[in-house]
Amino acid sequence: MLVRAFVPAHITAFFVPRFHDDPLKAGSLGAGVNIGKGVNVFTSVDTGALERHVHIAFNGEPVKKDEAAISYSVAEEIVPDDFAGEVEIWQYFDFPNGYGFGNSAGGALGTALTLSYKFGGTWLRAAQTAHRHEVLNRGGLGDVVAQLAGGIEVRVRAGGPGVGLVDNLFFEDYKVLVVPLGRLSTREVLDGDVVKAIEVKGSKALEKLLAEPTPERMMVLARDFAEKTGLLSGELLELARELDRVLKNPSSMIMLGRGLFALVREAEVEGARALLADLEVPYDIVEIYDGKPKVERWFEGEAK
Amino acid sequence: MLVRAFVPAHITAFFVPRFHDDPLKAGSLGAGVNIGKGVNVFTSVDTGALERHVHIAFNGEPVKKDEAAISYSVAEEIVPDDFAGEVEIWQYFDFPNGYGFGNSAGGALGTALTLSYKFGGTWLRAAQTAHRHEVLNRGGLGDVVAQLAGGIEVRVRAGGPGVGLVDNLFFEDYKVLVVPLGRLSTREVLDGDVVKAIEVKGSKALEKLLAEPTPERMMVLARDFAEKTGLLSGELLELARELDRVLKNPSSMIMLGRGLFALVREAEVEGARALLADLEVPYDIVEIYDGKPKVERWFEGEAK
Repeated sequence: MLVRAFVPAHITAFFVPRFHDDPLKAGSLGAGVNIGKGVNVFTSVDTGALERHVHIAFNGEPVKKDEAAISYSVAEEIVPDDFAGEVEIWQYFDFPNGYGFGNSAGGALGTALTLSYKFGGTWLRAAQTAHRHEVLNRGGLGDVVAQLAGGIEVRVRAGGPGVGLVDNLFFEDYKVLVVPLGRLSTREVLDGDVVKAIEVKGSKALEKLLAEPTPERMMVLARDFAEKTGLLSGELLELARELDRVLKNPSSMIMLGRGLFALVREAEVEGARALLADLEVPYDIVEIYDGKPKVERWFEGEAK
Repeated sequence: MLVRAFVPAHITAFFVPRFHDDPLKAGSLGAGVNIGKGVNVFTSVDTGALERHVHIAFNGEPVKKDEAAISYSVAEEIVPDDFAGEVEIWQYFDFPNGYGFGNSAGGALGTALTLSYKFGGTWLRAAQTAHRHEVLNRGGLGDVVAQLAGGIEVRVRAGGPGVGLVDNLFFEDYKVLVVPLGRLSTREVLDGDVVKAIEVKGSKALEKLLAEPTPERMMVLARDFAEKTGLLSGELLELARELDRVLKNPSSMIMLGRGLFALVREAEVEGARALLADLEVPYDIVEIYDGKPKVERWFEGEAK
């Protein structure tokens, strides 16, 4: 049996981490956007082996337990102890790991959803399992609940699924321009001195966004947050300023990756493309993903 | 400016009402299914009038304030007091009012979402406004949160949006067979002696469903609930038994309408159609709607 899940990539615009000893109460406040590319997880379960085996592969390459600690922990929890058979979890990422697209949460959530579909469980329990292991392994704090909400989301109460609360903004027909340039370690940033500034500026940004809850305002606040915390600086800030010249709403930094994102209208796409081609930086233009993740039985070449 | 919302019809399988003086804390526990037909709301807003006017129409026919008390209350709350112009809210229902498809909640939620899209606000605030007026006007208790969740839903913590908690079941490719036969007043049932039985049997059903959270189990528990509360009896029960002969999972009663519903697989559709045509009862076969309601700007014949 093969089950497929799609979990959107989630880009954080600004955030406030909320640590807690209980991983379901840990989470983040903030805002961000889910997009139509992300993580596809294909999980195949075959009985007929004598023992319980779980294998995980990233983009077609098998990975060891310590390279996929979060997804392995999720699988260990959901696959029943007495199951004898082969569980293969194939995760395909549209963006590189560590670039700030919520890959670890997407992989964990996709793993939890596909395994729960097969072995029993509910959406909420699957999502809580993914969130708990994300937090315990310090993969992230807010991606799982954001990915479940879809669209342009605002985390108004921190916590995992069933504890936190995520709101959504209304938006017109924007697309998302992403400029993924490199990695940034969430863990290192959250362990550094910048956390204090993130907490102050992030709380302020959330308060202002809730007073005027529009995508346009979110981008202004995100940019202000990125610059004032010092996370967006140097060449990346220069690039953001270049982008601003061809876009109506400010671009901002992908939290947390070395990269930029912006909301663009159809009429702005051509100008942005020309500029980025000129500058020779990689980019993509993707849809906003406005729904729940998908989970379905997958029929490889078979008729349904 | 014209804004359109689609809110799925929601069929309750079983429920436990939870009354509370604070309408956001009032709600219900239970389970049900959202389907691909429901309520379409088109809201047009024209400035240029001297006064603030709100008009509502059901299926193309203007209705008076007392015939659409819930949606009018929602509109009064969201349209700014100082707005001078015409607000027209056109609600189109795929099923008749009072038949148990969550029309009043769908109309209220569609009204709240379209008006909030236009006048500012968020999904959560719009949904809370719709839920509050549903409860205050005794339209229903759990439809709004269920419609927001989509799919096959389980209300595990009672309350309005942001207070209650809704889980989802995984399901394979079922369609929903609906047999809508007539009206049943939610208000009269909730005011009657049967409430005690509903509370006891509904709580039991929820507990059992959470121990084995599958759509198949939900249908067994729904049928048991419908019969043991005495809500499903007489001719309707006879009809349910007829349906059972051609379906794998039991059919059950639409809560609260004079009607039946069932989960059917593709291979069962033909047998069900033949039976219902034979019996000369109206029916429809619809998709499960597995997402959030839709809200979008609507361009009447215009190019985008």
